[in-house]
Amino acid sequence: MNEEKILKFIKSKLKIRRKDVIVGPGDDTAVLRYDKKYYLLATTDCLVEDVHFRKKEISYYQLGRKAIAVNLSDIAAMGGFPLYALVSAGFPEGKKEMIDGILKGMEELAEEFKFDIVGGNLTKSQFIFIDIFMVGKVEKKYLKLRNGAKPGDLIFVTGKLGASQLKKHLFLRPRINEARRLVKKVKISAMIDISDGLSSDLIRIAKESNVGFEIYSDKIPVSEDAVKISKNREEAILHALSDGEDYELLFTVPEKYSANIPEKIFSTPVTFIGRIISEKSYYLIENGKKRKIGSMGFNHFG
Amino acid sequence: MNEEKILKFIKSKLKIRRKDVIVGPGDDTAVLRYDKKYYLLATTDCLVEDVHFRKKEISYYQLGRKAIAVNLSDIAAMGGFPLYALVSAGFPEGKKEMIDGILKGMEELAEEFKFDIVGGNLTKSQFIFIDIFMVGKVEKKYLKLRNGAKPGDLIFVTGKLGASQLKKHLFLRPRINEARRLVKKVKISAMIDISDGLSSDLIRIAKESNVGFEIYSDKIPVSEDAVKISKNREEAILHALSDGEDYELLFTVPEKYSANIPEKIFSTPVTFIGRIISEKSYYLIENGKKRKIGSMGFNHFG
Repeated sequence: MNEEKILKFIKSKLKIRRKDVIVGPGDDTAVLRYDKKYYLLATTDCLVEDVHFRKKEISYYQLGRKAIAVNLSDIAAMGGFPLYALVSAGFPEGKKEMIDGILKGMEELAEEFKFDIVGGNLTKSQFIFIDIFMVGKVEKKYLKLRNGAKPGDLIFVTGKLGASQLKKHLFLRPRINEARRLVKKVKISAMIDISDGLSSDLIRIAKESNVGFEIYSDKIPVSEDAVKISKNREEAILHALSDGEDYELLFTVPEKYSANIPEKIFSTPVTFIGRIISEKSYYLIENGKKRKIGSMGFNHFG
Repeated sequence: MNEEKILKFIKSKLKIRRKDVIVGPGDDTAVLRYDKKYYLLATTDCLVEDVHFRKKEISYYQLGRKAIAVNLSDIAAMGGFPLYALVSAGFPEGKKEMIDGILKGMEELAEEFKFDIVGGNLTKSQFIFIDIFMVGKVEKKYLKLRNGAKPGDLIFVTGKLGASQLKKHLFLRPRINEARRLVKKVKISAMIDISDGLSSDLIRIAKESNVGFEIYSDKIPVSEDAVKISKNREEAILHALSDGEDYELLFTVPEKYSANIPEKIFSTPVTFIGRIISEKSYYLIENGKKRKIGSMGFNHFG
């Protein structure tokens, strides 16, 4: 089975018994009842040697930092903030410099985003894996999901896209602060973080919202690295559409509120790239021509 | 570094910033502020192919069940009950029968212990790993830790010990119900679940409580399988002391409350095995002779 089929199959097998599960299996982050004001958020994401990284291409510090950053990105996408992390890790041997480096990378983000690493588990394994479980909170009124996009809504993205694997993925800036600013200032209708690629993740919003979209090729913010490795603008756009690991925010806003969207949040650019449509098709508009696109991003078990 | 050194090193590097962390790194389970009545519990435990299991020796159903059971055991040891689980898994390919089997084993325990699997993450990896993140709750008054044992307290254990790897580990009965009954009926001073072996885990209680213990060889409840694989009682006792994966409850009770301890909880035997002493040494008393023992259990990176 490919990843999509597996996830569908899993969802069909899991029974939700508790009334306090607001969002369960199928989303990157679970949303759980907490108190009058807040929901609890719970997410997990894992980095596996020779699948997500090669030891030669990443330092231990960068590895620890990235393992945390991708989980923070999931919390950010819900409009929330982090509270606690558990670290479950496996490695062939317990080398001090490795553990020290990984912890430095993790603690740096813990310090910046004010959460605590409160526990975890260590195991021997033939290759390194770092699995993070992160718990966060979000005010009920600020919770953002993937299924709220409506025809006519405008589509925005933070940062610049494409070729993250070249360099950016080692220095990820989780968009927690940007997301918090956004949910407080703007009526966002749907949000996700771009982990598998702009097209794949925008299609997720579209499918769960039961809508389609058109995006404008000339509006897509392409990263310098994507330009650098491309022969022309067309190829760079393809990188921006399909490369994974951008970990930027992708969100939709009803047109009447779109004037509130700033061009930058802190120093992160926010770019209008397209529009939600009622027809359940996905279009890229390029030089006045409309062409259908599909999911071009990363797929485990593809 | 060996496991103990690694854990010490990690603990020294992690900073706890939030006031709502009641128990942080160092315990199997983190305890977090929740509301007036409850604490939140968060734990993680992982099964890795060729480290914790061999594919030929366990069915997918048993694998899923065990991955959940070992986490439930951690929640039980705190006196709590489970609410939610996230499943983070890696495997070489997405075979339907595998995923189906694993989910059946997990859902069986979810149904029995009334928690929900609310999300997770899937990744490709060269070998199978199943990492569970479990969230539970415990009434503040029922929270049990490892550090409360006092000289004179009696030591008890549930079930029978040793040679779990032969068969029992495939059919683990997490002691949630037993632990809940115990914390409601008896003043327990310290509790842990036996994952690495009776001696190792009792030494954990002793170290964290700043005490020692003596246990009586003739009181230790030895499993049938431990007897079966041993030449004599002495060898069987060694299995009961040092084998991992029993996942029974090990706890201490002030003597004045010990009359409240039943011989069985539901159908699980509860056995008195020894006494906490003020001298920080660990004794096994056998045929009237006292001998010092150390940690004999399982040690990753040993």
